Amino acid sequence: MDWWSTVIGLIAGGLTTASFMPQVIRIWRRRSANDLSLTASVMFTVGITCWLIYGIQLHALPIIIANAVTLGLNLSILGLKLRHG
Amino acid sequence: MDWWSTVIGLIAGGLTTASFMPQVIRIWRRRSANDLSLTASVMFTVGITCWLIYGIQLHALPIIIANAVTLGLNLSILGLKLRHG
Repeated sequence: MDWWSTVIGLIAGGLTTASFMPQVIRIWRRRSANDLSLTASVMFTVGITCWLIYGIQLHALPIIIANAVTLGLNLSILGLKLRHG
Repeated sequence: MDWWSTVIGLIAGGLTTASFMPQVIRIWRRRSANDLSLTASVMFTVGITCWLIYGIQLHALPIIIANAVTLGLNLSILGLKLRHG
């Protein structure tokens, strides 16, 4: 894997992980998550948990870190969705 | 990588990719995406585009397929968000 691919991969992981922060903030501020699909939120959270297990099995630290952060943010989104509807 | 890790990885990719379908359907039906963060949607879409480029550079078909489908679904979400607010 060359240098350029690694940079693109790091940008990709950084963006997809960080992207859930503004979503958490928006639901938190507006106290509303009605437009969010509960099914989508549950499927995504279970999927990210599987990615985390996969990373642990492979001892792949970047997969573990990115998915641990993404899982935390998505559990917040799921919690806010269940609370505010 | 053992058999069990591959199964977990496939479940992970399947779930995180498919999870965007119920979200597309929900916005489409309700004609409302007000609770979705535009910043989150743009960041995630750009991030997934980077994952797709990364997969192409690595000639990694599973990364290419999962991210191509995820990109299509997230472009739909972004389009619906811009249309319905």
